[in-house]
Amino acid sequence: MKNSFGNSINITIFGESHGNSVGFVLDGLPAGIMVDEQNIRALLALRRPQGAISTQRSEKDEFVIHSGVYNGYTCGTPICVTIPNADTRSKDYGDMERLARPSHADYTAHIKYRGFEDFRGGGHFSGRITAALVAAGGILLPALNKKGIYIGTHIRSCAGVKDREFVNISDDIKELSNKQFPVLDIERATAMQDKILQAKQNGDSVGGILETAIIGIEAGVGEPWFDSFEGLLSHAVFSIPAVKGIEFGAGFAVSEMLGSQSNDAIRTEQGRVYTETNNSGGINGGITNGMPILFRTAIKPTPTISREQQTINYVNLENSTLAAAGRHDPCIVHRARIVVDCVAALVTADALAVKHGTDWLAL
Amino acid sequence: MKNSFGNSINITIFGESHGNSVGFVLDGLPAGIMVDEQNIRALLALRRPQGAISTQRSEKDEFVIHSGVYNGYTCGTPICVTIPNADTRSKDYGDMERLARPSHADYTAHIKYRGFEDFRGGGHFSGRITAALVAAGGILLPALNKKGIYIGTHIRSCAGVKDREFVNISDDIKELSNKQFPVLDIERATAMQDKILQAKQNGDSVGGILETAIIGIEAGVGEPWFDSFEGLLSHAVFSIPAVKGIEFGAGFAVSEMLGSQSNDAIRTEQGRVYTETNNSGGINGGITNGMPILFRTAIKPTPTISREQQTINYVNLENSTLAAAGRHDPCIVHRARIVVDCVAALVTADALAVKHGTDWLAL
Amino acid sequence: MKNSFGNSINITIFGESHGNSVGFVLDGLPAGIMVDEQNIRALLALRRPQGAISTQRSEKDEFVIHSGVYNGYTCGTPICVTIPNADTRSKDYGDMERLARPSHADYTAHIKYRGFEDFRGGGHFSGRITAALVAAGGILLPALNKKGIYIGTHIRSCAGVKDREFVNISDDIKELSNKQFPVLDIERATAMQDKILQAKQNGDSVGGILETAIIGIEAGVGEPWFDSFEGLLSHAVFSIPAVKGIEFGAGFAVSEMLGSQSNDAIRTEQGRVYTETNNSGGINGGITNGMPILFRTAIKPTPTISREQQTINYVNLENSTLAAAGRHDPCIVHRARIVVDCVAALVTADALAVKHGTDWLAL
Amino acid sequence: MKNSFGNSINITIFGESHGNSVGFVLDGLPAGIMVDEQNIRALLALRRPQGAISTQRSEKDEFVIHSGVYNGYTCGTPICVTIPNADTRSKDYGDMERLARPSHADYTAHIKYRGFEDFRGGGHFSGRITAALVAAGGILLPALNKKGIYIGTHIRSCAGVKDREFVNISDDIKELSNKQFPVLDIERATAMQDKILQAKQNGDSVGGILETAIIGIEAGVGEPWFDSFEGLLSHAVFSIPAVKGIEFGAGFAVSEMLGSQSNDAIRTEQGRVYTETNNSGGINGGITNGMPILFRTAIKPTPTISREQQTINYVNLENSTLAAAGRHDPCIVHRARIVVDCVAALVTADALAVKHGTDWLAL
Repeated sequence: MKNSFGNSINITIFGESHGNSVGFVLDGLPAGIMVDEQNIRALLALRRPQGAISTQRSEKDEFVIHSGVYNGYTCGTPICVTIPNADTRSKDYGDMERLARPSHADYTAHIKYRGFEDFRGGGHFSGRITAALVAAGGILLPALNKKGIYIGTHIRSCAGVKDREFVNISDDIKELSNKQFPVLDIERATAMQDKILQAKQNGDSVGGILETAIIGIEAGVGEPWFDSFEGLLSHAVFSIPAVKGIEFGAGFAVSEMLGSQSNDAIRTEQGRVYTETNNSGGINGGITNGMPILFRTAIKPTPTISREQQTINYVNLENSTLAAAGRHDPCIVHRARIVVDCVAALVTADALAVKHGTDWLAL
Repeated sequence: MKNSFGNSINITIFGESHGNSVGFVLDGLPAGIMVDEQNIRALLALRRPQGAISTQRSEKDEFVIHSGVYNGYTCGTPICVTIPNADTRSKDYGDMERLARPSHADYTAHIKYRGFEDFRGGGHFSGRITAALVAAGGILLPALNKKGIYIGTHIRSCAGVKDREFVNISDDIKELSNKQFPVLDIERATAMQDKILQAKQNGDSVGGILETAIIGIEAGVGEPWFDSFEGLLSHAVFSIPAVKGIEFGAGFAVSEMLGSQSNDAIRTEQGRVYTETNNSGGINGGITNGMPILFRTAIKPTPTISREQQTINYVNLENSTLAAAGRHDPCIVHRARIVVDCVAALVTADALAVKHGTDWLAL
Repeated sequence: MKNSFGNSINITIFGESHGNSVGFVLDGLPAGIMVDEQNIRALLALRRPQGAISTQRSEKDEFVIHSGVYNGYTCGTPICVTIPNADTRSKDYGDMERLARPSHADYTAHIKYRGFEDFRGGGHFSGRITAALVAAGGILLPALNKKGIYIGTHIRSCAGVKDREFVNISDDIKELSNKQFPVLDIERATAMQDKILQAKQNGDSVGGILETAIIGIEAGVGEPWFDSFEGLLSHAVFSIPAVKGIEFGAGFAVSEMLGSQSNDAIRTEQGRVYTETNNSGGINGGITNGMPILFRTAIKPTPTISREQQTINYVNLENSTLAAAGRHDPCIVHRARIVVDCVAALVTADALAVKHGTDWLAL
Repeated sequence: MKNSFGNSINITIFGESHGNSVGFVLDGLPAGIMVDEQNIRALLALRRPQGAISTQRSEKDEFVIHSGVYNGYTCGTPICVTIPNADTRSKDYGDMERLARPSHADYTAHIKYRGFEDFRGGGHFSGRITAALVAAGGILLPALNKKGIYIGTHIRSCAGVKDREFVNISDDIKELSNKQFPVLDIERATAMQDKILQAKQNGDSVGGILETAIIGIEAGVGEPWFDSFEGLLSHAVFSIPAVKGIEFGAGFAVSEMLGSQSNDAIRTEQGRVYTETNNSGGINGGITNGMPILFRTAIKPTPTISREQQTINYVNLENSTLAAAGRHDPCIVHRARIVVDCVAALVTADALAVKHGTDWLAL
């Protein structure tokens, strides 16, 4: 399905960094979901570059709703939204035209598309396309909230600086929802930003780990085997550029635990079932168990840096070097946060629509 | 799609641990691929319990090919294979009938299936069902080998003991292919097995990390965004019970690297393009770059242990304790290895079939 | 998806006429649906050859349930059923080994599968594989009946002899459910059978038209455009061998009507909405309108006949003639009836599961 | 998948008649296919209303390519095109706001979308959305032509007047490609148009039958069972509003033929295989046999007519009458022609991409 994802609720994304627009078609949403353009704008603002720690490319992210919304509500048909590309300066990329940025998709796109790729600004592989995912999330997240489901992500670590863990997830999500730089411990936020600026001054970049919680999902959602909740989330999350790993609950740390440590003791109290720890990340056998869903996503340093790197000219196949000009981010971890939230919203809404039917989200 | 996976080549799996059979339907394979039953048996043997470090349940894994194979070759139609369950002792599970094993799927299955689940031996959530994936791999892996594509997995760490890294991947894969306990450094293998036995004696279990390499895939395979090679692999790998994390290339370690460190310098020599490091794990922008595909999978300790644990009776919703009787594995990391190989073979064969067409694998 | 169909509830079919077994995997059914083997047998009996007007191949259609059923109820996991092929006499087909039966799939299968096809008895293209669809219907149809949904098909015409139209659909469906030769007007049934026998004596075969009604479906099921109820039904029905046409409601007759004739006047009475005619066949804009769904399926004469025909040897590409030996049906219209019912049951159950969620059918 | 169709090459359509735009996302096309905007315009012109025999709504069908095209060629990524709605006069529909047009989707949309539907001008159920299918065909059809595959449709009958049959299909397709009113026999064209005008004068409408040929497809394309070429084509064709039937080759006429008549004798000459008749419509067992693919589509009379009809007010559920004001077509058969061609192009290109791989169409 290439650029589409989802079973009952699905999204198709399109666009190139320096083309006419990026955008999405979101299909399968029931009629009657409120579409608040302010909400979409607010989410897009969280994704936008932020001062010194981000690229200087400035996109206003004005968007056009072409279909699927009538009188402020979804009308049950596919929603197409385009976000025109405004601040494109293709000439900046002139020098890179034939030089592959290391660890970027320039070379693989050239091979796959046999020379016909729109290479300007990374084309279809640009982080710019995630604006479409975020705009779609601007419809999905409020709809989930109405159902008591909340999603939030913080920077668990960035450039080696660690944020505190989630404590009261519900409160933490609320606090994160307005933060441009989504860190729970404000002092760590400053330390992270210092590291980012330092990397920038060195013509370099940094990466980090995002930690996401989804709360309010009932037990019993997801499928065994191939449509496991983990499988669906990981599939969608790896679609986000720069993601190199995902782990649920205790994640890779399970490899050094004993079963008696990693197992989550199950308890019940007044009809409510819960586990004392959450090493499972809220999922057993692919199916939600009613505890918060917890996962962490590894984001690599932005590959486009101004330090000189060894690479090739991929047209004439000669070795060369590249010190990337143009505007780029020394870190995208904080901007990727809302993208992860929105992708998680899609997977969650879809899994619930499969279980409860196409109309459930609007009822 | 629930129990099915794949676009052009797809698999559907079925079966319960103590039901009639487990099995699969593999559809989309071209006609003319050799099906060597010895090969299937050899792979199943690698998955089977091994002496003291495994469960005492002993399945011969005899299988029946119902369709899709004619005169020793695929005939182009769906291949159905069933593997009868022979050594089932449901009575062992009598005590657990109403007690949820912590971090197993007993509770979530009960909620999802509303009391109609076949709970015997974990039912559809049993590792037993992976025998079907392995049998399918017994057809897919040799077909890929003929195309110069090889897949191998070793235990990167188990119970805290680390194996050496891949050195010469091609040789390492060859060496691993016959090993029941897939560790490259034989001394570490012994140390791991000691840890497993020790856990067993304590009524406990251990986990580990598997590291997988796929070599021989050309550059340009996979799709941007939702059908990224990472997205497809992760989706499939999270279908394997006990997996809690996956990472590609440098994986979570990217979070502490600078861009100038994590970026893979690209070089060319006599028309061949390669990178000096492989932090990308062979994939950029979701598309293969011609380098080995490398990923690591976190496997949690077997949840079923004989040490007493706190849990609930999920029928009458009362708190209780459980010391699991029955036969279970103190570690499944070594047995999961071939499952990961086979799942990776499916994803690889499918991505290539999408790119090169339905007949390619047999030509 | 090749041999699979369905979104939330889907089926995968497999098998060759003279292979080990034919069968299916039915996935996505909720837990808690009763599985009555007697019911499955009863449906299979309706598909079986009937005396002089059918082939002499006699299959007992014993079946094995491998998974997905526990204590007589679906347990929510994929149901695999195999039906072993018993009465296979491959030698009968010796002469035809290299001669393409006109209007059969011998030649196209040979091209598609590049000589590796299992050609015995038509292989995967044999009507024999429809036994799998019927067995699956033996689970689906009773589940739909419990929801007040009934499906029935009669022979609208055969060899030029016409049955009467549906009058009281509910009663007519009840009457048809036990009939081996599904014709409403018993005199026409005799006339049809005479025509079939006459064709048989001439080494020839006849075709006909099946008319199907689905009653009890609420208004509002199906999707606009590509998942229209008509689109889904037609897709599934054309999977049945020998189908050459499908029409809904007034069907092809609309081409000679005026809009004022073909439009169905809408009326309401005590909150119930209905149309005075049903030229729409119960569907408008792809979505059910609450009236009976009505469609007709054109079934061609069995292509395998004993009269001599011009054809080619498809291996050495020489012109030749063929007078087919072996056992074959002079007419399959009556046997195809239950196949259409079962395929319609799948589409109906699936569309309702998409709308109402995965558990609805069992609630 | 609701508003999406296709496996390797797929389309998603969106839009409401009186909303911002209609449009499509076409994904899976290889890079390097020429996109000629003149071609798209030419096809859209064939779909546009024609003088007295059509609606007076006049849409210029200007379109915007948002993505997926670079320097006049596809760049391998999803192509999003929007076609703004310009000439919308929603007030014309004021009276109908609450009256269901008989045999239109007003009532079913109201039920399905629970009152949130965009009912203006038929909303998402308007024939207007087919402009998106046609624009997509403006990319697909020339790409198929380059591969030697040609598709053409004529009006086989309209209002009871019959066109001559296809004779030399290749020449006939060429002749049809420029005709606004696609009839092979010019005298019959005049007779049909007279009938249409006559219906219009009576405030009525007429229907007809379209006959389509696809030539140049090799033998061996398509799949047995659920992805049969007939199944895929019928699924897509029934997505077109007003279609009530489809038949392949001899179609419903097979019901009155003997096998010895309906079977197509197979012959070979200098390595070429062909059949003497084409009652199979170029498909056996779901797989193309190398002969022209032939199918006929029944189009009902436009449901919106100005003659008074009995219907209901679907909001307050009261019986009423309706004489539709507004601009509507007395016949859409001639306009639907190019829609059928484009939908057939999608199915054909997709089936070939599945068989030959993602890049084939551009090579």
